[in-house]
Amino acid sequence: MSRRLEILRRATEVFQRQGFAGTSIEDIGRAVGIKREGIYYYFRSKEEMLLEIILPQSNSLLLTMRSIMRSNTSATEKLQSALQNHLDSFNPAYLEMIVALREGHSFKNDDKLRELRRIWRQYSDLWVALVEEGQQRGEFRSGYNPQIVAYGILGMCNWLSRWYDPAKGVALDEIIRTYLDMVLHGMALPQAATATTERAWEPG
Amino acid sequence: MSRRLEILRRATEVFQRQGFAGTSIEDIGRAVGIKREGIYYYFRSKEEMLLEIILPQSNSLLLTMRSIMRSNTSATEKLQSALQNHLDSFNPAYLEMIVALREGHSFKNDDKLRELRRIWRQYSDLWVALVEEGQQRGEFRSGYNPQIVAYGILGMCNWLSRWYDPAKGVALDEIIRTYLDMVLHGMALPQAATATTERAWEPG
Repeated sequence: MSRRLEILRRATEVFQRQGFAGTSIEDIGRAVGIKREGIYYYFRSKEEMLLEIILPQSNSLLLTMRSIMRSNTSATEKLQSALQNHLDSFNPAYLEMIVALREGHSFKNDDKLRELRRIWRQYSDLWVALVEEGQQRGEFRSGYNPQIVAYGILGMCNWLSRWYDPAKGVALDEIIRTYLDMVLHGMALPQAATATTERAWEPG
Repeated sequence: MSRRLEILRRATEVFQRQGFAGTSIEDIGRAVGIKREGIYYYFRSKEEMLLEIILPQSNSLLLTMRSIMRSNTSATEKLQSALQNHLDSFNPAYLEMIVALREGHSFKNDDKLRELRRIWRQYSDLWVALVEEGQQRGEFRSGYNPQIVAYGILGMCNWLSRWYDPAKGVALDEIIRTYLDMVLHGMALPQAATATTERAWEPG
């Protein structure tokens, strides 16, 4: 493993443990076992490290989402794969990262930041397209703004950064199953519909 | 309006415009029209200001949620009121605030921060209780962890901080209606069920 990559790995751990704002270049140097000058030899700032950590993750999320959208399946199955893809590559420090990148005035015009924004935009556009596709194919209810729906699903998932702890209790599979059912079928027990459906299946 | 309150109002505006991390005491002083020493006469830090802005908002959210939970209505109606309450008092800078408060090592043992955490915990516990109540009354599907469901709904709503701009297009009412329908009935068109229901209503 290259020294550069090793620094990024350690930085990822420290960011997740202490939060981005609460991490100094010294902390990362200590975790790697070198002085801060050694870190600055490879990176200009901790923002640059953060970007180099998030960019490949986000890019792989986008590539998988693209291939899901191209697949020859129903929108419902695409939704399932997309949820799985999103939550499987879920990063617990996601909220911090978003806020750090939004607030990091020092690197507002950075090329990598622009690249990351472009990836995130394309990724959420694909989610909106997924909902639209489901509506057009008659699989999803129409009459709803696909953007509101798509961003609602993403919010549901991304909120895990606020409460989900992989070390504690709840399994990611259960979360994926719950959110998929919730988004597709809702939480209300369709009492009346169930009753009439049952009656419809009674013989003659 | 007291000077203290005026500072808080201006600070709210500056935080929303520049983000919490990107705001200095000088920026707030400039917005109020006094020097930074004048700000420090009233507040120890911008973290203290942030807490004094969020505490009353969060407390009023909790009080309304409590009265919703005590109301003599179905869990479905409670869900509607709770969503409305949450999104009506929605603060666009919410993500920043959460992260700032989580990362603000300087005031980790602050009494006000402890108070805020207590309010947020009670508030989300009430959301979990709402889902449980719906399940127990047979209004919501059972077999799902109420915490995962409740946090999913909260995530859906809180994600607005990331994309919602009151000045642009989408109305809050439409968002409330969409998320309520999505959480209750889901996005899938129940094709088979619709077909059989229709048939069930056909005369004899």
